[in-house]
Amino acid sequence: MKGLPSLERAVVVLSRFPGVGPKSARRMVYHLLRRGPDAIRELLDALEGIGARIRSCERCHNLSEGLLCWICADPARDPTRICVVEEPSDLLAMEKAGLFKGVYHVLGGRLSPLDGVGPDALHLASLESRLSDGGFVELIVATNPTVEGEATAHFVAQLAEPLVSRVTRLAHGLPMGGELEYLDESTLYQAMVGRRDFRRD
Amino acid sequence: MKGLPSLERAVVVLSRFPGVGPKSARRMVYHLLRRGPDAIRELLDALEGIGARIRSCERCHNLSEGLLCWICADPARDPTRICVVEEPSDLLAMEKAGLFKGVYHVLGGRLSPLDGVGPDALHLASLESRLSDGGFVELIVATNPTVEGEATAHFVAQLAEPLVSRVTRLAHGLPMGGELEYLDESTLYQAMVGRRDFRRD
Repeated sequence: MKGLPSLERAVVVLSRFPGVGPKSARRMVYHLLRRGPDAIRELLDALEGIGARIRSCERCHNLSEGLLCWICADPARDPTRICVVEEPSDLLAMEKAGLFKGVYHVLGGRLSPLDGVGPDALHLASLESRLSDGGFVELIVATNPTVEGEATAHFVAQLAEPLVSRVTRLAHGLPMGGELEYLDESTLYQAMVGRRDFRRD
Repeated sequence: MKGLPSLERAVVVLSRFPGVGPKSARRMVYHLLRRGPDAIRELLDALEGIGARIRSCERCHNLSEGLLCWICADPARDPTRICVVEEPSDLLAMEKAGLFKGVYHVLGGRLSPLDGVGPDALHLASLESRLSDGGFVELIVATNPTVEGEATAHFVAQLAEPLVSRVTRLAHGLPMGGELEYLDESTLYQAMVGRRDFRRD
């Protein structure tokens, strides 16, 4: 709309969010304007907050508000087990699952030669140096179960195997609550390959 | 996540948008952080822009970047026809349809006694004063086809009828591209009531 360039600009910028099209971006702007200056101020403060405070953990590249993230800074975490994930959001998902009590290494992405993402674009050098310092008894690869995530997993495993006595990966198999009928064949295939004895654990 | 209060705050604030739940708010924050400080700066600028520049048009209460909005300021618009809408977003929808070349009056909502929105909460006094100044040959009520929008339409029509020679409203009927089979009965009822001779126009 020609008469409101600042509104149009906000719509364009908000449309850059994943899953936000021009229509929902417009609805968001209207909503803000309806709620008034305080709502805009609150949003500005919150965004300035993440812009100013959140950085990358010096050790594991997790999101952090200090030099070290709250996991690296926590003496209660087991420093002998390290879990390698693609993104900070994957780390947060793992934390929500709640089982793992060790430390992490966030790669900052996955290998994707087609998009020009090679090993140098990921935090692999710092991983290698952490592993070389020794003290790890297990490295768990927790990349995403996608083609690129799998390739990344293999790369990480190859890098880690000379340096850590045990390199493991998350199990592939049936998602909880899913139905066999609706599962893709490769998941079912992996679930068969990885089948376990009923009373084993 | 205890370690990132500024991130959690941004998630809470972004979740206030309609249709944005905590999960998509979180995805939005991760997206911003992945894209880096420039993306956050760009979003801040855009939001500051709407906060600082957009106000309410002095005459019609449309969103505006000047004292008068681009419609009230446009000498090419027909000043004898006025269209009454609930919100600026409704005005923009009318403009997109492109048929109406007159001016607008934005009520700033609809009558909703249950939510405590009575006539005083809407821009009805300024509408009455504009109509009293004379010069209008038609007032078109374009409130939403909801229960509250209909009540508001009747209220506006009652206010306008002594002051404007012709008070009209948008037609109710079949939406283009819809199928009779899936239409609600009240729309179909309205479409029957409002049926027109085939060759009339």
